Amino acid sequence: MPDSRQYVITFGCPDRTGIVARISSFLAEAGGWIVEAAYHTDPDTGWFFTRQVVRADSLPFDVDELRARFAGVARSLGAESDWRVDDTGERRRIVVLVSKEGHCLYDLLGRVASGELDVDVRAVIGNHEVLADITRAHGIPFHHVSFAEDKASAFAEVAKLVDEHDPHAVVLARFMQILPPELCEAWAGRAINIHHSFLPSFIGARPYHQAYQRGVKLVGATCHYVTADLDAGPIIEQDVIRVDHGDSVADMVRKGRDIEKVTLARGLRWHLEGRVLVHGNRTVVL
Amino acid sequence: MPDSRQYVITFGCPDRTGIVARISSFLAEAGGWIVEAAYHTDPDTGWFFTRQVVRADSLPFDVDELRARFAGVARSLGAESDWRVDDTGERRRIVVLVSKEGHCLYDLLGRVASGELDVDVRAVIGNHEVLADITRAHGIPFHHVSFAEDKASAFAEVAKLVDEHDPHAVVLARFMQILPPELCEAWAGRAINIHHSFLPSFIGARPYHQAYQRGVKLVGATCHYVTADLDAGPIIEQDVIRVDHGDSVADMVRKGRDIEKVTLARGLRWHLEGRVLVHGNRTVVL
Amino acid sequence: MPDSRQYVITFGCPDRTGIVARISSFLAEAGGWIVEAAYHTDPDTGWFFTRQVVRADSLPFDVDELRARFAGVARSLGAESDWRVDDTGERRRIVVLVSKEGHCLYDLLGRVASGELDVDVRAVIGNHEVLADITRAHGIPFHHVSFAEDKASAFAEVAKLVDEHDPHAVVLARFMQILPPELCEAWAGRAINIHHSFLPSFIGARPYHQAYQRGVKLVGATCHYVTADLDAGPIIEQDVIRVDHGDSVADMVRKGRDIEKVTLARGLRWHLEGRVLVHGNRTVVL
Amino acid sequence: MPDSRQYVITFGCPDRTGIVARISSFLAEAGGWIVEAAYHTDPDTGWFFTRQVVRADSLPFDVDELRARFAGVARSLGAESDWRVDDTGERRRIVVLVSKEGHCLYDLLGRVASGELDVDVRAVIGNHEVLADITRAHGIPFHHVSFAEDKASAFAEVAKLVDEHDPHAVVLARFMQILPPELCEAWAGRAINIHHSFLPSFIGARPYHQAYQRGVKLVGATCHYVTADLDAGPIIEQDVIRVDHGDSVADMVRKGRDIEKVTLARGLRWHLEGRVLVHGNRTVVL
Repeated sequence: MPDSRQYVITFGCPDRTGIVARISSFLAEAGGWIVEAAYHTDPDTGWFFTRQVVRADSLPFDVDELRARFAGVARSLGAESDWRVDDTGERRRIVVLVSKEGHCLYDLLGRVASGELDVDVRAVIGNHEVLADITRAHGIPFHHVSFAEDKASAFAEVAKLVDEHDPHAVVLARFMQILPPELCEAWAGRAINIHHSFLPSFIGARPYHQAYQRGVKLVGATCHYVTADLDAGPIIEQDVIRVDHGDSVADMVRKGRDIEKVTLARGLRWHLEGRVLVHGNRTVVL
Repeated sequence: MPDSRQYVITFGCPDRTGIVARISSFLAEAGGWIVEAAYHTDPDTGWFFTRQVVRADSLPFDVDELRARFAGVARSLGAESDWRVDDTGERRRIVVLVSKEGHCLYDLLGRVASGELDVDVRAVIGNHEVLADITRAHGIPFHHVSFAEDKASAFAEVAKLVDEHDPHAVVLARFMQILPPELCEAWAGRAINIHHSFLPSFIGARPYHQAYQRGVKLVGATCHYVTADLDAGPIIEQDVIRVDHGDSVADMVRKGRDIEKVTLARGLRWHLEGRVLVHGNRTVVL
Repeated sequence: MPDSRQYVITFGCPDRTGIVARISSFLAEAGGWIVEAAYHTDPDTGWFFTRQVVRADSLPFDVDELRARFAGVARSLGAESDWRVDDTGERRRIVVLVSKEGHCLYDLLGRVASGELDVDVRAVIGNHEVLADITRAHGIPFHHVSFAEDKASAFAEVAKLVDEHDPHAVVLARFMQILPPELCEAWAGRAINIHHSFLPSFIGARPYHQAYQRGVKLVGATCHYVTADLDAGPIIEQDVIRVDHGDSVADMVRKGRDIEKVTLARGLRWHLEGRVLVHGNRTVVL
Repeated sequence: MPDSRQYVITFGCPDRTGIVARISSFLAEAGGWIVEAAYHTDPDTGWFFTRQVVRADSLPFDVDELRARFAGVARSLGAESDWRVDDTGERRRIVVLVSKEGHCLYDLLGRVASGELDVDVRAVIGNHEVLADITRAHGIPFHHVSFAEDKASAFAEVAKLVDEHDPHAVVLARFMQILPPELCEAWAGRAINIHHSFLPSFIGARPYHQAYQRGVKLVGATCHYVTADLDAGPIIEQDVIRVDHGDSVADMVRKGRDIEKVTLARGLRWHLEGRVLVHGNRTVVL
């Protein structure tokens, strides 16, 4: 029952009166049963955002027809391209990029195995082979791409392996390699990274070492969209955990893992559910 | 600018298609500029909730006319009485009941003094006189009502002192006296208590002592509506703070105060902003 | 380097002057290099607790000799039996009991696989077979014991499978079966459960359903020692996560899992490191 | 009973074997009853730290004699100057510097009034007069020093007003003025600031505006010792609170206040209890 097919409409346009009325009347006239609806207006930029979830079986037409009809609504509200209709009947596909650290991958695989995260993990790609066995134990293909020699050709191979699946998300699960600008662009709004600090603190390499040196009393994790600007993309979710003077760098690394994995999992879930709308360098999570 | 006059509509009815369209069309036709809108549907009870904030100056009529016209909308949706239109132009009035512990009162008075909490504290009533001076230093009347002799007549006096202000909230800021059933009823949905535990743990007296005995690793605070059933009313907000084996009961009391006061302040703010809709024994905070 | 062999002394006795001097002088005279030391005095019960970690290579004798000599110190301080010397050179052994829910098991296995949790998982025992494959993928034996027919004989079989490993901890990782009193006694101080609520709230079955009904704003998890009194044993660690009116029971279950697994992992780590001293029904975590 | 007079020894020296034995034997031989003891060794710098709380009435001599005798112990352990013996019989004195924002001052005054924070607030100094009335209502002198014209002479006046009290702490409770280097030095280890961000993020002016621009999902507060390097002094305590896309800068400011005041209060308490040992740019809180 709770997992019946749904259409998820996300939409943004300049704010003005009557937007909600226009959209909700359109849906009401078609008999659409709204399961979940959220709205947000950004007073600074004067931008309006909404996410609406409609039961597929409440509409007398299919998703393509919904898209075609909603395009007219969007046009009338001045939103040429800033909208989308997703069909939960199409299972989300993801590809995961990893290195040696496995806690985020283990966590994702566990969620998928239990059915908590209903996605199709098409492939895991690693620049080391450490995580091959656990990946394959879950029946998922693992590809090893060495970055030791030529990073450019390695990234080309990764891109090829990723793009053949046309994934809804490319998850950098502690991948530790900086994506080249052309991949940041190609995967804009789909490449999701987990950074092991509370950004914007401790950008770049070895953030726990930086945190230790600064003597902070909490360490954090940040799930964000990847952009060409290192660790500066729109933030989807963040969390922190308490540390103290008794914690070595290794302790911080260990404690930090527990928030890295849950922060990534939350951010990824929201992304795949179409909850995350990017506006400038900020996100609206509806 | 951000504090211009607004009308706040809160509304609940059995869920069905077209409710949002009906309400938003009504507002759009009147030219209403929606500043904030939130919706929730409870799948268990099939109940729909919404809160809409409209700029007063966007409507061509006053709040009485809005109420009159919205009554028709509500009726057409099957919500005879489960709705309200508040006018932020009418300043919220509160009366605070206290005993000896002052941290919640100090906190509220500080928020009011700084303008953060824009309410009219009409009176503070205490069953001890300890907090009279600080209250009066803020220019607010303090009434001492002794509960040492006859509780019934004491409560009658409290009721008289409260009711003459017809307050939007009666705040039990660590009042430590159990309201009699008739006052629970008279102030239903307006009497707000802060209980010094994470309810439903440690109901009743000396919750920190109970928490210490049980050896919990977090202590909590709960802001809830008062009902005749002790500490069992609808919960508005809760929070916790970490304790450990080194904390005595006195330490727990001290640490707990810091969450009591902020939890009460958050719950009270939401109540006064019309964000809290009670449904059965649960709250929807929009 | 940081993982060189260590001896961990834990000790409790009635408080009086000179205890620290007695213990630390004993260690200093033997040349013991103290890596970590923690003390606690419970003012209510007048009990003194300490945990001392000594580098093995700083002592001119082995762990048996340390135990023999420390016995004299303990006796002189009135602590006949309330002390222990653990040798980190002896790898900790655990057995895990599971049912169908896999998030805690996945989490533990991931920690073990990465080396974060350096324990020997001797066996996983399940009353269902759902988690057999993932267990075996980690090279760990999985035993299925059916509880469908005769619980008493099922528990006898579980006990046999557990006891042959003489484990330092028996981990009930969402086992969902209530241990019979004789096993509670046999495994006293070693059987560790994760309960999916912030105890003492919502004892027993379906705590998330209870939490939903009560309308709490945070859900919790509690890691505790198992005693014959259901969900009432000494608490090792607790944590909470925020929920709101939009969360169904299923959402609470999902969010709660993320704190169940980390709370269990923290509690288990502390137990295995000899940090948890039980005193009455409370724990001291040093 | 719990507030009987105590001597608080804080001590740091290069780590080696026998330090605890030396100190605890010294105390034991004098009959010292240790109420609280904490130790920490920093493995990176090889430094040892301890804090010991002794009941004054358990020693056969006064605090001056304790200092004289302990000096010998400290010398024998190679700690010429890195130690201190505080007498809780001498009430802590503080001076508070404020500007217009009153939440931290209100909070401190409330704690002092209730007896929770047992300190002698000798004076409040403000560069505006907004907070004069509430200060005086608590019976505390308020001094207005204008910074509008000549900052150098204003700071000279502040220094004079502060130094006449020889305070144990100079509390910058949202003072909003940058201390000149000579005052940073004069008050080194005593000047405590609350910065309204999770440092090292958002150093300097308008941190909530910076946080809003960056789109973070949590805002923070940092209590730290003031040094000549802006917002870069040793951190005593930090905390965070969740924000989301719906929060304007003004909302962040409001929510942030609730953690600023409790973070400052915690840090100040620890400082006054002699719990905070500074080592390089990090703190050890025992």
